[in-house]
Amino acid sequence: MQIAIVLYDGFTALDAVGPYETLGRLPDAETVFVAEETGPVRNDSRNLAFLAERTLADVPNPDIIVVPGGPGPLPSAADGPLLTWLRTADATSTWTTSVCTGSLLLAAAGLLQGRRATSHWLALEELKRHGAEPTGERVVTDGKYVTAAGVSSGIDMGLTLLGRIAGDDHAQIVQLATEYDPQPPYDAGSPEKAPTHIVELLRSHADVILA
Amino acid sequence: MQIAIVLYDGFTALDAVGPYETLGRLPDAETVFVAEETGPVRNDSRNLAFLAERTLADVPNPDIIVVPGGPGPLPSAADGPLLTWLRTADATSTWTTSVCTGSLLLAAAGLLQGRRATSHWLALEELKRHGAEPTGERVVTDGKYVTAAGVSSGIDMGLTLLGRIAGDDHAQIVQLATEYDPQPPYDAGSPEKAPTHIVELLRSHADVILA
Repeated sequence: MQIAIVLYDGFTALDAVGPYETLGRLPDAETVFVAEETGPVRNDSRNLAFLAERTLADVPNPDIIVVPGGPGPLPSAADGPLLTWLRTADATSTWTTSVCTGSLLLAAAGLLQGRRATSHWLALEELKRHGAEPTGERVVTDGKYVTAAGVSSGIDMGLTLLGRIAGDDHAQIVQLATEYDPQPPYDAGSPEKAPTHIVELLRSHADVILA
Repeated sequence: MQIAIVLYDGFTALDAVGPYETLGRLPDAETVFVAEETGPVRNDSRNLAFLAERTLADVPNPDIIVVPGGPGPLPSAADGPLLTWLRTADATSTWTTSVCTGSLLLAAAGLLQGRRATSHWLALEELKRHGAEPTGERVVTDGKYVTAAGVSSGIDMGLTLLGRIAGDDHAQIVQLATEYDPQPPYDAGSPEKAPTHIVELLRSHADVILA
């Protein structure tokens, strides 16, 4: 089983690392970080770079595709090599997944047409404009497409898919090994739970966050 | 304010990225990934490398130190340059923090002597052997030392310290921006909650995990 985690300039690190540390612990799986070119790929904040080990062309048929999101104008804007690769790789994948605005890339590639899916809460309307049917759930499975909500939700997505593929015991081993017993010091992780002024503040900057 | 996230061969990616995506969003802070040498630093699973942008020597006086953990024989085994740097940098830091077995490095550097601290649940005894007073809490603050439990707990640690430094509103903005509204598909994230056979399985491999 081969898992390809897609990197591109401006990706969000936790979007990639959440599924990596959970789903990536699938027994006998090979995880590869892929990008248009090998070498360092810089994230949204510019102060962290992951090494892409292989090019998209090197990994044409992964069993599982993981697409992280990122703020700002995503490569989805242009119908470039990443979207072309996504369409081709998706044709033979067993699972095609995304975290955060990674679902906008899947949708821009035409893969979520009419499908239930999710994204960062600020991006649900844009996801709809791309032809998907957004839901407010944290992890959405529609056929082989598994999409997760904002940034940190990739951990929940990774564990969910891990359990589906490798069984509940293995997913629980990974949950315990990574001590994923969340205890956030605040209860502000969704627009339904956060204080109104915090939600409004982020909404008023949505154009910057998602521009 | 300068935040130094320490990388070393065999670190666990999520240990570093949890605090990075939360605490790293401190207003007007500069986050730098540091290691003994600049360039790619490979993680525990060997299939992911982060770029260290500066050497330890380049960053002698960070305001906040973040030390991720990693399985296997940590560099703590030898009293090398990392421990020397930790002692020197800690002398002027405002906060010295760790995730997972990163606390074993702090303890090996002599920084947690007699202090309440935590670590990965499988490493609490070893933490005690290094002179700290382990607690079962997910995030422990003792003076300027903030230690977190296993792997994923760095997110909770990052948000906790972010709130302490920048205020509750800012921490909640970051929680909502990263949509940290955890919904794990299982309730197996701590040895108290996981099924007994899962806990025993991991305990029986503790020598491999922590060796």
